Amino acid sequence: MTSSRARSGRRPGGEDTRGAILEAARAAFATAGYQAATIRAIAAEAGVDPALVHHYFGTKEDLFGMVMELPLRPSQAAEMIMAQGIENAGSNLARLFFSIWESPATRDTLLAMLRGAFTTEQGAETLKDFFEAALLQRVADQVDGPDAKLRVSLAASHLIGVAVLRYVIGFEELIRPTPEELAERVGGRIQAYFTP
Amino acid sequence: MTSSRARSGRRPGGEDTRGAILEAARAAFATAGYQAATIRAIAAEAGVDPALVHHYFGTKEDLFGMVMELPLRPSQAAEMIMAQGIENAGSNLARLFFSIWESPATRDTLLAMLRGAFTTEQGAETLKDFFEAALLQRVADQVDGPDAKLRVSLAASHLIGVAVLRYVIGFEELIRPTPEELAERVGGRIQAYFTP
Repeated sequence: MTSSRARSGRRPGGEDTRGAILEAARAAFATAGYQAATIRAIAAEAGVDPALVHHYFGTKEDLFGMVMELPLRPSQAAEMIMAQGIENAGSNLARLFFSIWESPATRDTLLAMLRGAFTTEQGAETLKDFFEAALLQRVADQVDGPDAKLRVSLAASHLIGVAVLRYVIGFEELIRPTPEELAERVGGRIQAYFTP
Repeated sequence: MTSSRARSGRRPGGEDTRGAILEAARAAFATAGYQAATIRAIAAEAGVDPALVHHYFGTKEDLFGMVMELPLRPSQAAEMIMAQGIENAGSNLARLFFSIWESPATRDTLLAMLRGAFTTEQGAETLKDFFEAALLQRVADQVDGPDAKLRVSLAASHLIGVAVLRYVIGFEELIRPTPEELAERVGGRIQAYFTP
């Protein structure tokens, strides 16, 4: 599936090329899902060399993050969670989570992704594939114990549940606290998943 | 808004009447939402006396639970959570939660309710109004401390997050454990919300 642009030859770099890559990536993630979409196919569709995609956007997960307009790269997020050591991973994760969700633009993106997961199987798979590879695995690699990935998933689940009740369903009690208060409470709770 | 049935006079009790009440209730909850729907309006629509609705179905929340085909009454659920005292509330809540979600028919109902909350504002409000009044408040009333309702909400949020990751998004790590294993892990974690 190459566009007429791709057939007519490769285009040079520049703003227009970045835009064309993002557009091709958006279409590829939406139709093929995160896992099946490839940098090679996205590059072909945008009429550029795959190396240029990597040059502009880094890895596939970084490109996905740019398409979704996430405020930071997954690798940065994993670093921030672990920046003060494993004994602060719970509160760091909780603080980062709420600071991201409190930005209205990002919240809309995340809600759309969650809604997509409820609506189509591919929406669920894309969310799962992206977060498992980009964030969960990366954090779990720095956590001791045989069931590290399960424990990191459980920590994430608590935060996602708060997000559903606060931002989607609108539970009175979970709307009232500041994000800092929530981060402190939930961060303290999920710390035990990192250091049992 | 009375149906021709209601205008033509009240009907006697029986299976057909139960069905007519359930049908009227389903329509009322769907169009007006949980909060605004009244037993009086449902009875009028079904062409019966409001007392008959209470006789067959108990309170409005019980009726809502019947319409949604939930496997037990909210008041029963609250009782089961507290049956072994507050020091076992976390594990009892977690066990009850997963036993309900593991039933495929009930899971479909709950997923539809959650999907409704993501899709329409009224879906979110109905879920919120029902669960806050029927379950959260009832459990919080038995928990000490000024922020009991917040803490019970946070306990619930952890379970809801696991449900989203296990049943909707399909996180590998949260699909693999048995419901009993999950109940034990999460139950232990949320216990501190009941007895800080």
